[in-house]
Amino acid sequence: MPAQRRVTIALIAKEAGVSVPTVSKVINGRPEVASETRQRVERLLHKHGYQRRTGHRDGPVGLIDLVIAEVESPWAMELIRGAETAARETEASVVVSVLHTKSGPGRDWIDRIAARRTDGAIIVGSHLSARQQAQLNARAIPFVVVDPDGEPAPGMTSVGATNWHGGLAATRHLLELGHTRIGMIGGPPDMLCSRARIDGYRAALETAGLDVDPGLIRNGDFLVGSGRDQGHALLSLPAPPTAIFAGCDMQAFGVFEAARQRGLRVPEDLSVVGFDDLPLARSAWPPLTTVRQPLQEMAALAARMVLSIGRDEVPEPRRMELATDLVVRESTAPPRVA
Amino acid sequence: MPAQRRVTIALIAKEAGVSVPTVSKVINGRPEVASETRQRVERLLHKHGYQRRTGHRDGPVGLIDLVIAEVESPWAMELIRGAETAARETEASVVVSVLHTKSGPGRDWIDRIAARRTDGAIIVGSHLSARQQAQLNARAIPFVVVDPDGEPAPGMTSVGATNWHGGLAATRHLLELGHTRIGMIGGPPDMLCSRARIDGYRAALETAGLDVDPGLIRNGDFLVGSGRDQGHALLSLPAPPTAIFAGCDMQAFGVFEAARQRGLRVPEDLSVVGFDDLPLARSAWPPLTTVRQPLQEMAALAARMVLSIGRDEVPEPRRMELATDLVVRESTAPPRVA
Repeated sequence: MPAQRRVTIALIAKEAGVSVPTVSKVINGRPEVASETRQRVERLLHKHGYQRRTGHRDGPVGLIDLVIAEVESPWAMELIRGAETAARETEASVVVSVLHTKSGPGRDWIDRIAARRTDGAIIVGSHLSARQQAQLNARAIPFVVVDPDGEPAPGMTSVGATNWHGGLAATRHLLELGHTRIGMIGGPPDMLCSRARIDGYRAALETAGLDVDPGLIRNGDFLVGSGRDQGHALLSLPAPPTAIFAGCDMQAFGVFEAARQRGLRVPEDLSVVGFDDLPLARSAWPPLTTVRQPLQEMAALAARMVLSIGRDEVPEPRRMELATDLVVRESTAPPRVA
Repeated sequence: MPAQRRVTIALIAKEAGVSVPTVSKVINGRPEVASETRQRVERLLHKHGYQRRTGHRDGPVGLIDLVIAEVESPWAMELIRGAETAARETEASVVVSVLHTKSGPGRDWIDRIAARRTDGAIIVGSHLSARQQAQLNARAIPFVVVDPDGEPAPGMTSVGATNWHGGLAATRHLLELGHTRIGMIGGPPDMLCSRARIDGYRAALETAGLDVDPGLIRNGDFLVGSGRDQGHALLSLPAPPTAIFAGCDMQAFGVFEAARQRGLRVPEDLSVVGFDDLPLARSAWPPLTTVRQPLQEMAALAARMVLSIGRDEVPEPRRMELATDLVVRESTAPPRVA
């Protein structure tokens, strides 16, 4: 049972060749420890899987930290709503931090929330290095990653959607309508959710016996502007696509803009599929065919997992993917006969 | 200076006829005080303008509470972004609470954040009774209201935009294009920002020598669905408007939907003006003519005011209105000649 496997501070101190108070200082995010000592202690805490029983000793503080790389998109609002709803069930509140970088929370931030105390962190769309994970573990901050950027470390708890299946479903829908030249706009290349969507797109083409044309695959940043720019790039090709799977709803709205600027009608001249099903997809013009991912549910699940890790429960499985669904609206139609 | 005017707990205890520890319990949000006693103490704390010097005694905790009635709209995201940016300047974070009611935070919530400690609260779009203000004051929680619902109490610190001027500018723009039958969709009738926009609309018509037709003024809930419904209602009138000032961007998107469902083109058959200038207004189809209110700046200002009240500074003036600007895009045009 967890209690028997628990690693003590004394054991860490002995192995690191430092005093017990020094290990405590590292765990509590105090600054007065030499950098080299801190790193040695953190490595050992990580190696032994040390987790402080914050929840047990002091009781929960009622704060869950939601850490987002960027909040330009209404997508972030859906995650905040979901986390807030789940937190409220346990009388907790959600603290929102915007990192303005994809490189994950820095040690200053981790020390600050450790000093202020938190019941755990939901880290969205960020890269989280082994070092950062060790820092969070050392300070007994339970964390769950939503849509990680880069390869998640083994054993890291994460929540996502079935992005690969969503990409497959979006592309198959376009193939079934008769499209054979289908453009793809992914998100940032490092984001696993984007890669999975692109791989689903490829799989749909390949299983339909079509070649994948690398010139039809682009990457954006998941915002409207890059959808517009990559949409223009695809539509400027000598043999432009008749349909675009835009990778996310915001990029789909950007493709709408590019199409209008070129005098193309959606869906008559160009079919467009999004991904997310944001509240605005329904009232867009035309209403957007998209792959729904349950963003609120994903954030709510992440919040509950964070709290359960804080109660010394180990979530099984470590990686949860919630189902996506194709929602067919009015932005897709058969291609025009040439 | 503030220090000399400061009211002591001893004075309150004496006047209330209770012990000093009892007053302390009320201030710290402890439950073990009889309801009648609690109310008497709260009234006296409010009457004497008691404010605990939380910031001075224990130092700031690095948490600002942003309390929102509802978060259905991307509008809320803009406020969170603004508050988060201002908080980060002082190494603070923003805690988001969603009330799911317009009646403001309840005593349970106030006690919970008092017990957990906070540097102050930004309360958005809610009604805040004298009782609730007294509860916040008694617990030494600095607060600033953004876009209050209902009449704000005298002395309450609040932030808004120049809604009246924005309503005037939106309506004058339509009058200048030649429209004379202009529909108006306000928000919830109790929200002052909505009333001010409607009054600006009236003032524009009246100063242009036009009668105000009460049948052309409707109220929605500031979301897409009510824009669509009220848009249909206005366009079904025997003499429908040739232009609609939709009160906010989300309602304008709803009016777009209603127009499309009726086979009307925007702006050829119907001009539409929004209010907010959300990031999506620019990429809507057609790009939305709207009144920009600086939502991020409003929330950032509110955060800074909360922190300055916590430092015992008294913000002057108590009511700040940030300027609005008309942004002309493509959803407005002269009316068709009948």
